[in-house]
Amino acid sequence: MPSLESYTRNLPYSYALGLFPASELMRKRPELAKRLLVSSKAENSEGLQALRELCQKHHVREENADRVLSRISGKDNCFAAVVFDKFQGELTNGNHLVLHHPSDKGNLGTMLRTALGFGYTDIAIIRPAADAFDPHVVRASMGAIFGLNVRYYDDFADYRCEFPEHALYPFMLDASVPLSEGVRQKKEPFALIMGNEGSGLPAEFAQMGQAVRIPHSGEIDSLNLSIAAAIGMYIFKEE
Amino acid sequence: MPSLESYTRNLPYSYALGLFPASELMRKRPELAKRLLVSSKAENSEGLQALRELCQKHHVREENADRVLSRISGKDNCFAAVVFDKFQGELTNGNHLVLHHPSDKGNLGTMLRTALGFGYTDIAIIRPAADAFDPHVVRASMGAIFGLNVRYYDDFADYRCEFPEHALYPFMLDASVPLSEGVRQKKEPFALIMGNEGSGLPAEFAQMGQAVRIPHSGEIDSLNLSIAAAIGMYIFKEE
Repeated sequence: MPSLESYTRNLPYSYALGLFPASELMRKRPELAKRLLVSSKAENSEGLQALRELCQKHHVREENADRVLSRISGKDNCFAAVVFDKFQGELTNGNHLVLHHPSDKGNLGTMLRTALGFGYTDIAIIRPAADAFDPHVVRASMGAIFGLNVRYYDDFADYRCEFPEHALYPFMLDASVPLSEGVRQKKEPFALIMGNEGSGLPAEFAQMGQAVRIPHSGEIDSLNLSIAAAIGMYIFKEE
Repeated sequence: MPSLESYTRNLPYSYALGLFPASELMRKRPELAKRLLVSSKAENSEGLQALRELCQKHHVREENADRVLSRISGKDNCFAAVVFDKFQGELTNGNHLVLHHPSDKGNLGTMLRTALGFGYTDIAIIRPAADAFDPHVVRASMGAIFGLNVRYYDDFADYRCEFPEHALYPFMLDASVPLSEGVRQKKEPFALIMGNEGSGLPAEFAQMGQAVRIPHSGEIDSLNLSIAAAIGMYIFKEE
């Protein structure tokens, strides 16, 4: 492997920064791991010891890499990371979370973590969109991405072509049906569709499936995207 | 007013950074506003024009302040801000959101925004805790803090002394009762109690009121705090 570069979208590998995300990688997708990077400032904690053992078991070599770690983590104090090959997931025919043009890395990471927590393991992301393999997303997801099938599509139509039978539930601020009512007619498998942070979903989504809205007061413009997605996933799972 | 300082917790004033938060301040608490700061790089957008008009109406003076803006906003590209006097809220006897030792600024801001959206206007914060007036929190809240009663307490006992009758619902990972069941015995007024991001609530909260948990798979350690708080607030409002 040549010397490690700062992360960009076109790089074939990425970084799981921090003990928790790196350990999730080693537990769930060890075959993707290439190298363990450890800072000389790292304390020999239990967590680091456990990560080392996982890496040894899977023949992943350890390196001291102070400069690389501070460069790739930016302002974060990050003392360990695992380099991994990026992968393309395949969606199953179960329930889906569809993210249409998500742009914020923190929101994307949080949504992946929530999705794994609520058993939504199939995630479709419609471009343009934040990069789920960006180290900041991987970190915000707490490594949840290693337990998920994440697949990118250039267009919603491409996704729909592959899964024409899913019942669609677009989340829209101006939908006439509140979430609590929409979920009562739930059909499985379904796809919960969330729009962009600033612009939401394009108007044509109102004609697809059953658009729903999460009622909130007029005191705020909208809920944060990761909050809306979480409430949608919780309600569709629990009801 | 003397020259403007970088924000610290002990400063008597703070900054509403960005057009949306600054406009929320001017709409909801104009009496607190001291100065409008505008960057020479700001485009004369409709939003800026509306903010200027609000400030003129309330006799808030405009200043060019490039250096101050870039200093206080850090890495953010922030072209406008309003300086405001910090305030202490008084809680009403309605339903409360109680945040016990919240430490992350982004989470705190998001929780304030969600709270305002779901009509939880009374927020108790138990110290040690992130500072709700920190410019990054104000910004993450999208100015929601100006529509809320936020009050800090040194101790949960101090809060409880003031509101001994509220039905308590601590959110805990190991509570035996799931949220959907706990909410069925809802009594008003209630207080939803959320713990710290890393450590949750201390064990003694399990004996107070009705502890509830949000069921999630073992694939994640926990939900993000702002996600858990949002689901709790939504369910207690809707059911």
